[in-house]
Amino acid sequence: MPQPIRALAAACPGGPLEAFEYDPGPLPPEQVEIAVEHCGICHSDLSMLDNEWRNARYPLVPGHEVVGRVVAVGDQAKGSSAGDRVGLGWISDSCMHCRQCLGGDQHLCREKEETIVNRHGGFADRVRCHWSWAVRLPEGLDASAAGPLFCGGITVFQPIVDFGVKPLDRVGVVGIGGLGHMALKFLNAWGCEVTAFTSTEAKYAEAKSLGAHHTASSTDKAELKKLSRSLDFILVTSNVSLEWAAFIGALAPRGRLHVVGAVLEPIPVSTFGLMGGQKSISSSPTGSPLLIAQMLDFCARHRIAPMVEHYPMSQVNEAMTRLREGKARYRIVLDR
Amino acid sequence: MPQPIRALAAACPGGPLEAFEYDPGPLPPEQVEIAVEHCGICHSDLSMLDNEWRNARYPLVPGHEVVGRVVAVGDQAKGSSAGDRVGLGWISDSCMHCRQCLGGDQHLCREKEETIVNRHGGFADRVRCHWSWAVRLPEGLDASAAGPLFCGGITVFQPIVDFGVKPLDRVGVVGIGGLGHMALKFLNAWGCEVTAFTSTEAKYAEAKSLGAHHTASSTDKAELKKLSRSLDFILVTSNVSLEWAAFIGALAPRGRLHVVGAVLEPIPVSTFGLMGGQKSISSSPTGSPLLIAQMLDFCARHRIAPMVEHYPMSQVNEAMTRLREGKARYRIVLDR
Repeated sequence: MPQPIRALAAACPGGPLEAFEYDPGPLPPEQVEIAVEHCGICHSDLSMLDNEWRNARYPLVPGHEVVGRVVAVGDQAKGSSAGDRVGLGWISDSCMHCRQCLGGDQHLCREKEETIVNRHGGFADRVRCHWSWAVRLPEGLDASAAGPLFCGGITVFQPIVDFGVKPLDRVGVVGIGGLGHMALKFLNAWGCEVTAFTSTEAKYAEAKSLGAHHTASSTDKAELKKLSRSLDFILVTSNVSLEWAAFIGALAPRGRLHVVGAVLEPIPVSTFGLMGGQKSISSSPTGSPLLIAQMLDFCARHRIAPMVEHYPMSQVNEAMTRLREGKARYRIVLDR
Repeated sequence: MPQPIRALAAACPGGPLEAFEYDPGPLPPEQVEIAVEHCGICHSDLSMLDNEWRNARYPLVPGHEVVGRVVAVGDQAKGSSAGDRVGLGWISDSCMHCRQCLGGDQHLCREKEETIVNRHGGFADRVRCHWSWAVRLPEGLDASAAGPLFCGGITVFQPIVDFGVKPLDRVGVVGIGGLGHMALKFLNAWGCEVTAFTSTEAKYAEAKSLGAHHTASSTDKAELKKLSRSLDFILVTSNVSLEWAAFIGALAPRGRLHVVGAVLEPIPVSTFGLMGGQKSISSSPTGSPLLIAQMLDFCARHRIAPMVEHYPMSQVNEAMTRLREGKARYRIVLDR
């Protein structure tokens, strides 16, 4: 009999996280089990906790920015050995045989399993996933700060790579928070000219220290207008409605507005706003296991790490409150 | 003194086209003058005639799908000689020195001149343009039907090339009219699996004869739902509001909804609709002179021509009425 997993769960929407044990059953042949050492808190953990997207099931165990050691390996699991230090993000399984999986787009698999949707996540002593989604940490990466790379990090890194952002490009990042601050670091190391957009002028200096060459208001239409036709790529990491027409106007010809923030209201897109400059709007979720591995190598090479605040996992409710109040600078990691 | 140009102009919004002469002045050094032999009628000619976009000036001479012979060449004009048979489309000049022009994206030049905006177009015995926008017709292309390629044709050909549509792709074309019927021909020759979407079931058989492998309703939500996740690229050539969410749902992962119809109402875009499948929405205007030349070569090689109805230019008002009533199958060309 396997030991029960000792986790922290909410019993109802918005409820506090409390001790919760469950029996994970026998380890499926293609899975690995990870002993959790650290787990980042993502805004999606809050959204799920609050059932904002209407797909939560309770008791709900959040946590999908896991770093830990592989402690058990299924009979058919590949590429992982007991003792490996790995990370696990938003996705914990994919079918491996659909067009997307076979093509290297496992993050776009229709049958993918999400770490905290209809299953229990990483606020726990152990967590499981398909072997392919347990991505090994390279030498030289600080494991205690690496958790947020597995969801927030890959979410902003993926479009930089996948939509062909070049070191020659002028790139804007909207929202300097958990995702945005990592995007600034990535894009600076990527060689781009980087503009940070925020509604909080107090963040301007820090945005520059994180890698921005320029700062601008994300809400001042007149200031946005001055940036007309100047940016090749704008990455929106905030989840609020913006002056969309002004941001589309700030795109250079062939520019792309890419939204990774979970914006709930529809974005009203004017065809004429896109047409003259041959512009695009798009969105994307997380990234593939290969790209996660490549991102980790890139971070190790460029000494990129999320800026994190640490809490012991036992203080998870205080940590959640701090995130909820928008006070985290810029990501919280729970340590076991 | 140059001879006056004898044109057909509307004196006011929606007005009939009547004989109108104007003195074009000395030929500017970088321009060429074309003796018009044929001129297609585009829906944009109607929109300008009716001042639908609030940028018309009267007397307005429509016509931007010109085919004719070069009859005069400015001192500094390159690449054209008197006697060349050329075509002229929506754009008649670009600055040649901005980032876009230097990069081969002359169609995205901010200072571009449009053939029927603030100047007189091709419903005339002669018309002028910058030498770069007078694109030579290759051998083997029927000049009498080629006019519509220079606006409608390049508008649908450009995104196929520029957004990387592959012969492996499953492509939808929405709206089987002036633009859409050419898109079917192009995409069939491009090697794609082509689905024609139309609200007019009577067009299904013809859509297949034009190159579609499949046909579907553009308005039936249940039918659209069956096509969920099946199309890599959807080219919208109609200018009406569609079941946008259903069409975005019909996109396969990494799919793109590309709108070239002049849709006036904003398109409400759900971030979540794009996010899961990493989808894009975009638009584009016409294409560069190089791409127009490449399109003409492609048409000659694959024996592609617009399906046109001919009217003598003297019957321009009858022809405009036919277009206005949606009866043209599928493009009208005026012959001099």
